[in-house]
Amino acid sequence: MRILLTVEYDGTDFVGYQSQNNGRAVQDVLNEALSELYKTKINVTGCSRTDSGVHARAHLSHADVPFFIPEDRVPLALNAFLPADISVKAAKYVREDFSARFDNKGKRYIYRVYFGRTKSPLLSRYAYYSSYDLDVEEMKKAAVHFAGMHNFEAFCAAGSTQTTFDRRLYEVNVREVPSDCIGTTLLEIEVKGEAFLYNMVRIIAGTLVDVGTGKINQADIPSIIDSRDRTKAGKTLPPEGLTLEEVYLDQSDLY
Amino acid sequence: MRILLTVEYDGTDFVGYQSQNNGRAVQDVLNEALSELYKTKINVTGCSRTDSGVHARAHLSHADVPFFIPEDRVPLALNAFLPADISVKAAKYVREDFSARFDNKGKRYIYRVYFGRTKSPLLSRYAYYSSYDLDVEEMKKAAVHFAGMHNFEAFCAAGSTQTTFDRRLYEVNVREVPSDCIGTTLLEIEVKGEAFLYNMVRIIAGTLVDVGTGKINQADIPSIIDSRDRTKAGKTLPPEGLTLEEVYLDQSDLY
Repeated sequence: MRILLTVEYDGTDFVGYQSQNNGRAVQDVLNEALSELYKTKINVTGCSRTDSGVHARAHLSHADVPFFIPEDRVPLALNAFLPADISVKAAKYVREDFSARFDNKGKRYIYRVYFGRTKSPLLSRYAYYSSYDLDVEEMKKAAVHFAGMHNFEAFCAAGSTQTTFDRRLYEVNVREVPSDCIGTTLLEIEVKGEAFLYNMVRIIAGTLVDVGTGKINQADIPSIIDSRDRTKAGKTLPPEGLTLEEVYLDQSDLY
Repeated sequence: MRILLTVEYDGTDFVGYQSQNNGRAVQDVLNEALSELYKTKINVTGCSRTDSGVHARAHLSHADVPFFIPEDRVPLALNAFLPADISVKAAKYVREDFSARFDNKGKRYIYRVYFGRTKSPLLSRYAYYSSYDLDVEEMKKAAVHFAGMHNFEAFCAAGSTQTTFDRRLYEVNVREVPSDCIGTTLLEIEVKGEAFLYNMVRIIAGTLVDVGTGKINQADIPSIIDSRDRTKAGKTLPPEGLTLEEVYLDQSDLY
């Protein structure tokens, strides 16, 4: 039977989701815990690779397991075999051909940025520090231009082997959220979309930060998209600010 | 001239504020940065020791410095010599006999606790996980009993060499705050007081968690305080949940 796992992790000490030969991957750690619990070799398939250092509050992975354990007992049973920076939050049995990778309907990411005169150690693990103040209202205007189906080649890491750069974004929001740290303003850049190119959210966030500093005019976002030229968009912001917050599913796929 | 520094730090990788011979102390790291900036040996005095692993959003330290740098330039100048887990947020010149330790009017701490069926790696760096659900309303009732001047010997780490256990707490609050992590409830236990005994906030938090689980009845808090018996109060919760949020000053001390 096939099971779908919702997994939260702090990405700081992972090389990303996908197994590679250069370090500790989320996928490897999940495979090990599942193999311990079910006493047989098990391989998970994820809804997406997240990059090294990127966090997830609700990443999805599916796996085929050899025997039934009640859904509400699976998280605790697996967590007994998992380290402190990763936790299975929920488990759900799904149809045998369901794929976390191909059957998800999209994802919601938040890129967190803060600014102020000095860095805040209590924010820096999960947010990027902009040493320039940001004009939040201009960033909000810029965000609106990203929604819809566009060719996002200008927002894809150079050297990508994609065959098509067309992707649909449902919504991009910029909002200020409370920060307890002295003299800091904390922003959430929320990106909801059907599918994403490599580094796309981090480049959109970098472009919005450039709008916030005045380096890019918000009205120029449509022409930057149309240019399909990576050099016209902002820089790729570092991974620690990015968290995969939610994966959209068709509820009829779950039972 | 004497300068007062407001310092934020992530306590995870510190042995606490005070210099000791067993590892990296906040005080040592500040002394080194000040000595680099002012090209002479400088020693800071802190408003309080914080324990190993405890965080601070606004710890205060004073130091005597040999020459004038404008207040608004001191933080950036010092931060150039500080590692990523500590940051000077503000600087203010004070009278020559002002002491961060003796002239503060009290402190505000928050102990963060969360509960839910599974741990959340994205909360665990700054909050303690209770594997039992907590009754927040009972905890709120219990919190009220701590305010005022009391002998807090029951809430002081055993073996302490204090001569008096009388301490005044201004207010203790328990409140639920938003948590983005699936299936978790996040609480802040806020303790405002004039002065504190060793481990006092962490023992008060442990006692309130015991009220939340039903192990201690909220109505029994006054008799637990009166007992002066450490074994009657709850356990000392771990340091990662605790943050020194604010230090109260008499504004007339600043100029």
